[in-house]
Amino acid sequence: MKIIVQKFGGTSVADVSRMKSAAKRAIDVHTSGSKVIVVVSARGRMTDELLELAYEINDNPSTRELDMLLSTGEQMSSALMAMAIHSLGYPAVSFVGRQVGITTDSFHTKARIVDINADRIIEELSKNKIVVVAGYQGVDKNDNITTLGRGGSDTSAVALAALLKADICDIYTDVDGIYTADPRIVPKARKRNKISYDEILELASMGAQVVHVRAVEFAKKYNVPIQVRSSFNNDKGTLICKEVSEMENIVVSGATITKNEAKITIIGVPDKPGQAAKIFQELAKENINVDMIIQNISAHGLADVTFTVLKDDLPLALDTTERIKREIKAKEIVADDKIAKLSVVGIGMRTHCGIAEKMFCALSDEKINIQMISTSEIKISCVIEENQAEKALNAVHSAFELNKEE
Amino acid sequence: MKIIVQKFGGTSVADVSRMKSAAKRAIDVHTSGSKVIVVVSARGRMTDELLELAYEINDNPSTRELDMLLSTGEQMSSALMAMAIHSLGYPAVSFVGRQVGITTDSFHTKARIVDINADRIIEELSKNKIVVVAGYQGVDKNDNITTLGRGGSDTSAVALAALLKADICDIYTDVDGIYTADPRIVPKARKRNKISYDEILELASMGAQVVHVRAVEFAKKYNVPIQVRSSFNNDKGTLICKEVSEMENIVVSGATITKNEAKITIIGVPDKPGQAAKIFQELAKENINVDMIIQNISAHGLADVTFTVLKDDLPLALDTTERIKREIKAKEIVADDKIAKLSVVGIGMRTHCGIAEKMFCALSDEKINIQMISTSEIKISCVIEENQAEKALNAVHSAFELNKEE
Repeated sequence: MKIIVQKFGGTSVADVSRMKSAAKRAIDVHTSGSKVIVVVSARGRMTDELLELAYEINDNPSTRELDMLLSTGEQMSSALMAMAIHSLGYPAVSFVGRQVGITTDSFHTKARIVDINADRIIEELSKNKIVVVAGYQGVDKNDNITTLGRGGSDTSAVALAALLKADICDIYTDVDGIYTADPRIVPKARKRNKISYDEILELASMGAQVVHVRAVEFAKKYNVPIQVRSSFNNDKGTLICKEVSEMENIVVSGATITKNEAKITIIGVPDKPGQAAKIFQELAKENINVDMIIQNISAHGLADVTFTVLKDDLPLALDTTERIKREIKAKEIVADDKIAKLSVVGIGMRTHCGIAEKMFCALSDEKINIQMISTSEIKISCVIEENQAEKALNAVHSAFELNKEE
Repeated sequence: MKIIVQKFGGTSVADVSRMKSAAKRAIDVHTSGSKVIVVVSARGRMTDELLELAYEINDNPSTRELDMLLSTGEQMSSALMAMAIHSLGYPAVSFVGRQVGITTDSFHTKARIVDINADRIIEELSKNKIVVVAGYQGVDKNDNITTLGRGGSDTSAVALAALLKADICDIYTDVDGIYTADPRIVPKARKRNKISYDEILELASMGAQVVHVRAVEFAKKYNVPIQVRSSFNNDKGTLICKEVSEMENIVVSGATITKNEAKITIIGVPDKPGQAAKIFQELAKENINVDMIIQNISAHGLADVTFTVLKDDLPLALDTTERIKREIKAKEIVADDKIAKLSVVGIGMRTHCGIAEKMFCALSDEKINIQMISTSEIKISCVIEENQAEKALNAVHSAFELNKEE
């Protein structure tokens, strides 16, 4: 017997009619003879509204209490979804994370699942019920309610799919799959039929947040096939699965731009061992996440160190860097928050040459200057001027012929 | 060391500023050296809004799923209250009913508490924290979330107070105590300083729903003193406690009118054993709650049976009565939903004579006709015409000099 996990995001359960169409999808699978587990997010803007309320009361709310508060959004959705399924004449039962044995560590607001005991789900499935589970949450070993961070419902769904050895984890959302680029920017962007876990991880970490990163990591680890699809139509979505040899033929599977980073350059760092370590140790202490790092040796034994941080972290990063500057006797600090990061991702890069050159040429043809470059096995990223981002994305999309059929 | 339970109703936590003033009350007690347990209801209209949503999705929602849904309202309030206490610089931790070991039976939406394991509360109190508990809820032995019915947060508060042997259970609400009559109807109504459990039970069952009936029953059983007081000022409220001899001097402690009942008379019931039983058995089968019952023998071995039911139940009660009428060969059915029930309550009635006469005279002086009379040990109720209700309440309030000091 097939087991299917369906996850419905906030927009897919935002109101009564959408909740009923989500219920119908679960029922369709149920009546076809498969077992269905439905994982739901909080409705629409619920989580944001609760957060606003929390910050109105306390400008630095306890993360434990935030979890207590935010977990109610998914609990509501799960109860309402069970009621919606009942209203269409089918059996269903809802559970919060804890009730289906989702145990996490104690890092409130970003907890990780450490164990799931699916006995109760299996019991209810065996009674032929549709099981509805509140996503995004669990409980730690001291019985405190925890949440898994933004997008955590994806992780709940994939974790349950892994444990129950589900045939597929369908993630219903407001887009109909993963695109070669953001279609709002690149009109010729095309929906991919299939993409590998590694590619989606690189894309997701760059802001193409259709599926939560941690969920994909989980899916990759346990080899759970995920289908990202629209809750507004019945089209096939994009299958996220393990790498198969045919994928290697596709050199670049997607391109993205992100504008949430800023660049800091420390000019004139004495070029001796341990200086870079000092800079990034101090930034790490302040919990500032550093993305790209470049170091060039300049004249007279002095180096320039450039790195990017999230724009939100820029003020704190600048304060920290000023402090380090004095300590390590660097010369100057320059910051720029008008940058964008353009990236191309593809498993095929591992076995194909000339990808970077093709990207650089495409940018050069459009007279776009590259400020920083960073590469991984399956990704090339360039930092460029912010106001050239859209033009650059289109140029690269065309250069790699991403509009053509797979 | 003193232990104090404070319960804040929906209006007392409706918005951020009210939540903060509730938090301040808890902190005042905490800083005075007492242990504080705060029990909270859902904010403002939250429960009603969730109910509306549920009925929009399913016109007959599963009670299990309703509990799953409704319990989130109190959970939110508890987290927000803990945040409010934190924001004022004091330690607090919130719990849902289950986390503080509140086990109930499985009658969803009207569950009864069967056990509480207060280990976690005691542990947190010993760490000098203010413990915030989501009222109204528990969990049954199969780990399903349950709720205790409307006003159930009062019951949660009193049950915790009983278990922890609290010195007092303060119930903060939008009125400043229990009055001798509804002050909106009787301008001379006066707040009582003290009232017995039995009196409040009689008054509560007649619509003076300041404290939930079940909470008072619980308080009576475990001798928990309750103080009903306003969350908008610091005045003393009304103490609800066990009967003390001084209370006997107060013949009547309060008077109420209710307009939520209708009257049905079955005329010409053959006067033989078992006929009344048949009528009320059938009504019970339909889950119709019958309040007052009167039977008069009329001429020719025929009796008239009159009883009252909730107005909401009137259509179903009439259908049922019509069916029984044919079966028992009664003559006619007459209904009247333009009635009011006037009641006076007082422990002193047990030891004082002439109370009923005084009430009847007061009504007679105002030319108010009494349609039905029913008495208990500490209560006298009369059914009168609805449009005379207010005049009747004022007349009785004056006759018993309820405006005078205790």
